[in-house]
Amino acid sequence: MEAGAPLPPAALDEPAQPVAKLTGTLFGVGMGPGEPDYLTVRAMKVLAAAPVLVHFCKKGRRGNARTIADAVLTPDPARECALAYPYTTELHPEHPDYVAALAGFYDDAAAQLADHLGAGRDVAILSEGDPFFYGSFMHLWRRLKDRFPVEVVPGVTGMSGCWTRAGTPITWGDDVLTILPATLPHAALVARLTQTDAAVIMKLGRHLPKVRAALKEAGVLERAVYVERGTMAGERVVPLHEKPDDTAPYFSMVLLPGEGRRP
Amino acid sequence: MEAGAPLPPAALDEPAQPVAKLTGTLFGVGMGPGEPDYLTVRAMKVLAAAPVLVHFCKKGRRGNARTIADAVLTPDPARECALAYPYTTELHPEHPDYVAALAGFYDDAAAQLADHLGAGRDVAILSEGDPFFYGSFMHLWRRLKDRFPVEVVPGVTGMSGCWTRAGTPITWGDDVLTILPATLPHAALVARLTQTDAAVIMKLGRHLPKVRAALKEAGVLERAVYVERGTMAGERVVPLHEKPDDTAPYFSMVLLPGEGRRP
Repeated sequence: MEAGAPLPPAALDEPAQPVAKLTGTLFGVGMGPGEPDYLTVRAMKVLAAAPVLVHFCKKGRRGNARTIADAVLTPDPARECALAYPYTTELHPEHPDYVAALAGFYDDAAAQLADHLGAGRDVAILSEGDPFFYGSFMHLWRRLKDRFPVEVVPGVTGMSGCWTRAGTPITWGDDVLTILPATLPHAALVARLTQTDAAVIMKLGRHLPKVRAALKEAGVLERAVYVERGTMAGERVVPLHEKPDDTAPYFSMVLLPGEGRRP
Repeated sequence: MEAGAPLPPAALDEPAQPVAKLTGTLFGVGMGPGEPDYLTVRAMKVLAAAPVLVHFCKKGRRGNARTIADAVLTPDPARECALAYPYTTELHPEHPDYVAALAGFYDDAAAQLADHLGAGRDVAILSEGDPFFYGSFMHLWRRLKDRFPVEVVPGVTGMSGCWTRAGTPITWGDDVLTILPATLPHAALVARLTQTDAAVIMKLGRHLPKVRAALKEAGVLERAVYVERGTMAGERVVPLHEKPDDTAPYFSMVLLPGEGRRP
């Protein structure tokens, strides 16, 4: 177990101390699925108070986690820290150049945040969904957790937002739920879809044709629901077998709702 | 797909109408994992405004979802509606008497809530974690969704609360995550644990000895973390192999954190 040193959630609520804080706290803030009203009370408090607000983004663009915060933050460029990925989809994630570039990016970012933390400034990393469920936060957390106090604020996951807006429970009774990245090979997808009661397939992108074929081979295509930009502007929910094309943006996933016990 | 008719989240925010509402809205409110600060902004608004607050409970006891709300609600017995399960752990969930009793219980409860909704009163069902991820809400939702407007407010799941407090990311990179009910037979648990990168094992109760044996047979016992009452009073986090006994209360689960890509 890679245990950090989580602080009790009261940290930011403490009255002003008569002595200066020695180091800042690293916050991983779950920003939820997109709708700002799905932020937690704790996230709102941390966003309001932290002097440094960090978000990940594509070069030259704002990140989605930061966009969610627009609805609740007064603009203040002095608090902003944007971390632009060296690559996004240009190289395969297992390509050595990609791994090396990303490791260097995370190392540099961690050093930059360590300067703030060492100077006593709290740093909040805005994380889509829940900070410990996929995503980039954990790569900075891993580099900083043994040197600074950490508080992770859990969030509503993107998949919860999607099944909520699809209007369908994902698991009933004793259903088994499998979360699958669409990057798995076709045969592995088929095997796992055949064995599970319910599934969520993430990271669709260019893998949608393969996912569609795997769902068909597993005999569950009719039950699959495609959700795009769940809880965000431009949201779209459609049974996958009725979706005519195989285009899937970053914020899309396929849900396979369970059919368990219903007394 | 069992699609309900979700309303846009603005419903409760509308200005008072000059004409009476014809029917109330059924809200499924995700109460999060236990810590009241992990309630969403939307949940807070619905809890503050809904004239009928419903929670499930054991006979003679308050339900946990309702206990979470204590921190944010002014007591008002006129708003309260407690639904006491006819059974909890006395019978097996597949026993015909259990199924019949539970079906009758949900039918009666739905009729009771339909009276409120039909009279124009909004009804908020307080649901532990996320309303569409296991739990009892969906059994009332299924009975009422075609007759009344519905809004589901997603919540932080209990498992997110647990991995947050365990201080461990659950999934990295392209990890597959499997959510398993501990009620599965030993061999099924072993097979699924052998094939997944990360796992969450829920509904432990008296199944902990079987779960422990299955983790051992799958060769992953050393990585398993036991979390009890995550984010609540009496929280306990311990590597499972260091837990000396096999007692597990209702609010407990086992986490098997993934070990995926870490650039």
